[in-house]
Amino acid sequence: MSEARAGVAETLRDAPALSAERIMARCDELARCSEQPDGLTRVYLSPEQRTANELVLGWMREAGMSARLDAIGNCVGRYEGERPGLSCLMLGSHLDTVRDAGKYDGMLGVISAIECVHSLNCGKKRLPFAIEVVGFADEEGVRFNATLLGSRAVAGTFKPEVLDAVDQDGNSMRAALAGFGLEAGALSKAARRKGEVLAYAELHIEQGPVLEAEGLPAGVVTAINGATRFAVEIDGLAGHAGTVPMDHRQDALAAAAECVLAIERRCAAVPELVGTVGKLECLPGAINVIPGKVRFSIDIRSPRDVQRLAAVADVQRALREICARRNVALQATKTHEGGVAACAPWIAEQLGQAIAAEGLPVRRLPSGAGHDGMAMIDLADIGMLFVRCKGGISHHPAEAITLEDAQTSARVFLRFIENFQPRE
Amino acid sequence: MSEARAGVAETLRDAPALSAERIMARCDELARCSEQPDGLTRVYLSPEQRTANELVLGWMREAGMSARLDAIGNCVGRYEGERPGLSCLMLGSHLDTVRDAGKYDGMLGVISAIECVHSLNCGKKRLPFAIEVVGFADEEGVRFNATLLGSRAVAGTFKPEVLDAVDQDGNSMRAALAGFGLEAGALSKAARRKGEVLAYAELHIEQGPVLEAEGLPAGVVTAINGATRFAVEIDGLAGHAGTVPMDHRQDALAAAAECVLAIERRCAAVPELVGTVGKLECLPGAINVIPGKVRFSIDIRSPRDVQRLAAVADVQRALREICARRNVALQATKTHEGGVAACAPWIAEQLGQAIAAEGLPVRRLPSGAGHDGMAMIDLADIGMLFVRCKGGISHHPAEAITLEDAQTSARVFLRFIENFQPRE
Repeated sequence: MSEARAGVAETLRDAPALSAERIMARCDELARCSEQPDGLTRVYLSPEQRTANELVLGWMREAGMSARLDAIGNCVGRYEGERPGLSCLMLGSHLDTVRDAGKYDGMLGVISAIECVHSLNCGKKRLPFAIEVVGFADEEGVRFNATLLGSRAVAGTFKPEVLDAVDQDGNSMRAALAGFGLEAGALSKAARRKGEVLAYAELHIEQGPVLEAEGLPAGVVTAINGATRFAVEIDGLAGHAGTVPMDHRQDALAAAAECVLAIERRCAAVPELVGTVGKLECLPGAINVIPGKVRFSIDIRSPRDVQRLAAVADVQRALREICARRNVALQATKTHEGGVAACAPWIAEQLGQAIAAEGLPVRRLPSGAGHDGMAMIDLADIGMLFVRCKGGISHHPAEAITLEDAQTSARVFLRFIENFQPRE
Repeated sequence: MSEARAGVAETLRDAPALSAERIMARCDELARCSEQPDGLTRVYLSPEQRTANELVLGWMREAGMSARLDAIGNCVGRYEGERPGLSCLMLGSHLDTVRDAGKYDGMLGVISAIECVHSLNCGKKRLPFAIEVVGFADEEGVRFNATLLGSRAVAGTFKPEVLDAVDQDGNSMRAALAGFGLEAGALSKAARRKGEVLAYAELHIEQGPVLEAEGLPAGVVTAINGATRFAVEIDGLAGHAGTVPMDHRQDALAAAAECVLAIERRCAAVPELVGTVGKLECLPGAINVIPGKVRFSIDIRSPRDVQRLAAVADVQRALREICARRNVALQATKTHEGGVAACAPWIAEQLGQAIAAEGLPVRRLPSGAGHDGMAMIDLADIGMLFVRCKGGISHHPAEAITLEDAQTSARVFLRFIENFQPRE
């Protein structure tokens, strides 16, 4: 083992093929696949996704992989091991974005993994296992209000009812698949068998402030926080803004405003808990009409399931109280409930060793954001490497990393890959 | 005078041409000119407005009027008096609607006025003044966030800067006019000279609960309440809903929610005052992103200017305090400020006489809603006749009046027209 390590360190030191400049340039290139010219938005099964897929599949092939689009639209590259057909270490992240996104969330992990394989390929190095790199087609869930579609399909846990979900233009996921040249009936072909994936490992920006505050370029994730989401609809009574006295109103927006503040107040009461109303739609939406209907989303997360479930129950109670007092109808539909997803200690240990081999302290931290690992955990043990990002800012155009951190984290990831020992 | 009255009463009793059934059927017909199949929305310079205009111009001609579209898209019908070219009594209301509107707000006034002229025409009756009926193209201001465009053009107070206002698709009013076959440069041709309009009188549903509560089909408006409107933008910082701790957030929606409740609280503190946030847009608008920007409207009205201005000042102060405390940027732009518009006592007196002649009590009441009279008052003295509506509901598909009230109010309006005495 120690001899092998020394050999790896040598390889890395010499590896001219591991280029942070190329990683950064490719992040820029993917960021130009966007529905708007002055920012980045790339949703599932969009024309922009098609362009991004073509780039990624090309880069995979350049890196010595066979590459294909799977049944749900994920980009899948495969680099064979010492002999063809071995089980794989699966690396990946997602290629879709939120609206007006940053250019590293998701994409950095896919591009860095390809860069690592490229380095192996340049050194004509084959490992005692195959490597697969997956660029998941949907993790954020922007288009169909259902997250992790790509990784769920690979893990074999995709829920067929999502096929009937519609986007804001009324198109179902089923129709969108067909428009993209994919077939809803063939989705199960994307699923992988348990034995063929030894582990799932993902490199991702932290999207939070911890690593930056401690002056560290990378860290090892211990667990992905659990989350509960609701779609809420409040029905009041629309009316003329000039004639209905204040005490006769059933104003859906005033009720929703009270709900937003109740959610904020409850979640602010516990340090690790967060609660967000990210979407809100007010109808009919005219200056001189009292809002009759408001729809909004709730997202509550915590590193502790008990804490999250207590907050969810309190929030539900508060919303019922507010809407009953204001004489408006409340409908709160749970759209997602996921417990804490723990990273496997044996993978975290190997990621930690790779960080230490770079002469860096090993910082372990939980992930406040959700990741494809939450779905992949049903298929294989998972691990995650976090990369420092500027100001902890993510899901925003100001999302940024340094060239040095791209280099360091790719080196750590390559060390991890080259030294990867499957669980016995 | 009293002999003339008796003659009129006779005419009315015999008038087979005054048909409430036709009035109601035409309201239904106009309601089908809508951008959505299952409800009524008809905004300024839309294809639906073109269809509605064709119907109204046709009905005007059937009623014996010459009819034309004026430079801003108003339908203008003229019924000459005892000799051609006399000054006119101008009757009217608006043909545009709010989103998901009722079918009487505005339209009832235009259709009832046409019905009255039709009755005169059937009796071959000419008056010592001309009558003009105007169907205003925009009163609600839904499309360009600026109200009373049609009546302002007629009154000669249209503000040319509104031509550069854009709708939600980014089209300017200037471009929309051109698309409709009208020319921005020719708008001033819609303006009328002061001498040629003796008075402006409008029949309109009450849009409030007073007449229904007192069991009265119609009432005389004393004044139109003053109103102040703001367009507000709050800029916070978008961020990841899972990773940014609650105490680090600059959530634009949470700030806006506090503002909505502050407006509601301040306006509910005084019985006659009303305050409404009718539009609210939350950006970027994704489940898992902390809102970075929120835009909303404020509409504050009162029958007393002093009361309204005090509330406006308090609301502005409250918004500044909320946004400063939450570390988000506030921009509140006043988009409309209009004082109370008093109806002319001499016109109100004649409307009251017409109600009394139907054997009904004369109820005088202020208007909580704004009306074209607010603009027309710059051209001529104004008067308004209110018609009872069901539950005081307006700006809502449930807006309703009875056939009997349509009949009674049209009879009152015809009495008023036939007996109209211009101010000396």
